[in-house]
Amino acid sequence: MSIQNQQTKIVIGLFGFGVVGEGLYQVLANTPTLQAQIKKVCIKHPDKKRNAPPGLFTTDASLLLDDPEINVIVELIDDADAAYGIVTSALRRRKAAVSANKKMIAAHLPELIELQAIHDTPFLYEAACCASIPVIRNLEEYYDNDLLHGISGIVNGSTNYILTRISEDEISPEEALLEAQLAGFAERDPSLDVHGHDAANKLSILLAHAYGILAQPDELIYTGIQNLHEKDALFAREKGYEIKLVATAQKLKNGRIAAFVLPHFVPRSGQLAGVRNEYNGIIIESSLADKQFFYGKGAGSFPTASAVLSDLSALRYNYRYEYKKLHYQPAGRPGHDFSLKVCISFKGLLQVPHERFDRILEWSSNAQRCHITGILSAAELVSGNWWKQPGISLIVYPDGLRENDRDTEIPVSSGFVEVLAEA
Amino acid sequence: MSIQNQQTKIVIGLFGFGVVGEGLYQVLANTPTLQAQIKKVCIKHPDKKRNAPPGLFTTDASLLLDDPEINVIVELIDDADAAYGIVTSALRRRKAAVSANKKMIAAHLPELIELQAIHDTPFLYEAACCASIPVIRNLEEYYDNDLLHGISGIVNGSTNYILTRISEDEISPEEALLEAQLAGFAERDPSLDVHGHDAANKLSILLAHAYGILAQPDELIYTGIQNLHEKDALFAREKGYEIKLVATAQKLKNGRIAAFVLPHFVPRSGQLAGVRNEYNGIIIESSLADKQFFYGKGAGSFPTASAVLSDLSALRYNYRYEYKKLHYQPAGRPGHDFSLKVCISFKGLLQVPHERFDRILEWSSNAQRCHITGILSAAELVSGNWWKQPGISLIVYPDGLRENDRDTEIPVSSGFVEVLAEA
Repeated sequence: MSIQNQQTKIVIGLFGFGVVGEGLYQVLANTPTLQAQIKKVCIKHPDKKRNAPPGLFTTDASLLLDDPEINVIVELIDDADAAYGIVTSALRRRKAAVSANKKMIAAHLPELIELQAIHDTPFLYEAACCASIPVIRNLEEYYDNDLLHGISGIVNGSTNYILTRISEDEISPEEALLEAQLAGFAERDPSLDVHGHDAANKLSILLAHAYGILAQPDELIYTGIQNLHEKDALFAREKGYEIKLVATAQKLKNGRIAAFVLPHFVPRSGQLAGVRNEYNGIIIESSLADKQFFYGKGAGSFPTASAVLSDLSALRYNYRYEYKKLHYQPAGRPGHDFSLKVCISFKGLLQVPHERFDRILEWSSNAQRCHITGILSAAELVSGNWWKQPGISLIVYPDGLRENDRDTEIPVSSGFVEVLAEA
Repeated sequence: MSIQNQQTKIVIGLFGFGVVGEGLYQVLANTPTLQAQIKKVCIKHPDKKRNAPPGLFTTDASLLLDDPEINVIVELIDDADAAYGIVTSALRRRKAAVSANKKMIAAHLPELIELQAIHDTPFLYEAACCASIPVIRNLEEYYDNDLLHGISGIVNGSTNYILTRISEDEISPEEALLEAQLAGFAERDPSLDVHGHDAANKLSILLAHAYGILAQPDELIYTGIQNLHEKDALFAREKGYEIKLVATAQKLKNGRIAAFVLPHFVPRSGQLAGVRNEYNGIIIESSLADKQFFYGKGAGSFPTASAVLSDLSALRYNYRYEYKKLHYQPAGRPGHDFSLKVCISFKGLLQVPHERFDRILEWSSNAQRCHITGILSAAELVSGNWWKQPGISLIVYPDGLRENDRDTEIPVSSGFVEVLAEA
């Protein structure tokens, strides 16, 4: 890694010139004080008209990767596989790398960590989680594992935009998604957002920096907002809640970490309810700092560019992620020693295997919709996938996490279970 | 500065063993993974009982400052003059320094910046602004001056605690202050908090990192909550506002910065209204990241210790403030080319020189209290101090800042002015 001196100018090889790439180019061109310059941009489609001098562009990656003057490779392309190739090539050549590609990072974090160590070269990706919110760096620097009780947050701007529009303007999910796409903060493949894959990718990255856990997204309990029903929004409103898609990592008493991305009821007076539209917000709870809340735009070209800029700025003083939580303890797996108090909503009772609940606390039913409030174990959420099926929505209650040693719920009467069984 | 290597252990000489110092000691002792150890603690009163081995303590500062093994001096004492002596002695010996003493830093920032440069040694003080909220480092790293529209926030935990208790529990300011002191998050001299001096110190520090402005606190327009009247809280509530003491720095169209600490009405649905008790919250607005909000505990031993820890962590990778906004443009002064829409509340009309308003927009009066809503120029706030006198309170309206080229207010009728003059 050749950026040892604070005064060294950063010379960038940029891959991709979409909205974020062009945003970055413009900011750097207009702000010489940043002391960073894009020397070459590698693009896929040379015939596309670009708002930059033609001499800047090439389709030959080696012109960037093998240029000794270029000391930082910034990768802002959509294709996760190609992005992986670019970042690993950069690190092997001891060029620092910056990426915003959460899918690629979540899928390859162990290899990327190893490559950084082998080649003693940093790879930064603040833009991959919550765009403009400096959450990765803060988790790295501020919170020793022992002191961090948990994080929970809204980490996907598109689904939050959709949920806000549904809740506040009562438009349909489809219309809301279309708006999010037009506004440029939905993933090209909307199912990445809507089905929760994007949020799971981000939680996977956050787990590494918060707790030293390297878990593939598909090892996490997660779903998106694809099954939420308009009656769920009504149900939430009646109870004084909003519905938000929340990513959570919380330390259990046995030291293991509960981790999941699920729709949550959040109290209307709470901080997460105040996170509207494409904004993201993360609550971090720790023994020293107590409760902190970080809020900012989680999607869009400029917020993403702003996070990339902050990585470039950090490279100037040779900053790197230390991954110290990985180093000083065995990399744990997410724990499943907990249950969740959830609301399952669906049409028609028999779709839902009510015997899978640890307990059923409440139910209601009308011609359009049935709601069961009950306790589901993490083991059930991991092994079964009935709760993700079309027509069934699952929403976690506030403070809905129960550790398995706790036993404070009112037992459901057996007569009540029979009513359900007969329905 | 001898901490070049990321693996170098941090060996600390600590000045002061009050609540923050002891908190820091305990965390470091219990968390060996932090790779930082307190070698010696310099205290004033050797006979006081301490929760640490007696051999740790000394009253001889030179045992810390002249120990070649100690590479970081952490200063956590109350006395600003002594703190200045400690930090400057450390820097002259090329030992990195960490402090939480906002009063000392605000008073001496130019010298402290120069000393860091001369001796090529960092001085970090994240704990001096908003304790656990990483605002200084984020302003340094994330926001180029050209891109930063403004910051505004609640930066003093004690006054915010008092305002919250008055608003929510309707207790008296005196009782609330006593509670804040008992809870350990008021300054030893409560007038530092209550009269706004502490908030002005913090704004002075924030101005350096946000805009490269080095201004002494007494050059800023500021007051505290000492004159707020219970009727003001009622008046606020009727209008759907809360009253908060807000520090603001906002870029004007002419490029200059409006900077002040004043009580503000904040909309009850807004983010600052949600900052309760001893919490702090800062809104940062910029062209790239748009609006960001950072929230966390702004006072107390552990939140302060957590910020000191983060500085120690930053020193491990040789981080230093670059003060780049000071370097790449002439250090500006706060600008006064603006006016504020304010509410002046007082008892009896004649106390207030109503001719000093640019305009009067509204007034009301009853046996207990009079309220004038009007426009006051920054020049008037700077030159006159009638608005700070006992019995008169000034509260800024939401979006109350007007640039002097704007001229959109409804003119007050001359008849109305006469009514005021006769009253």
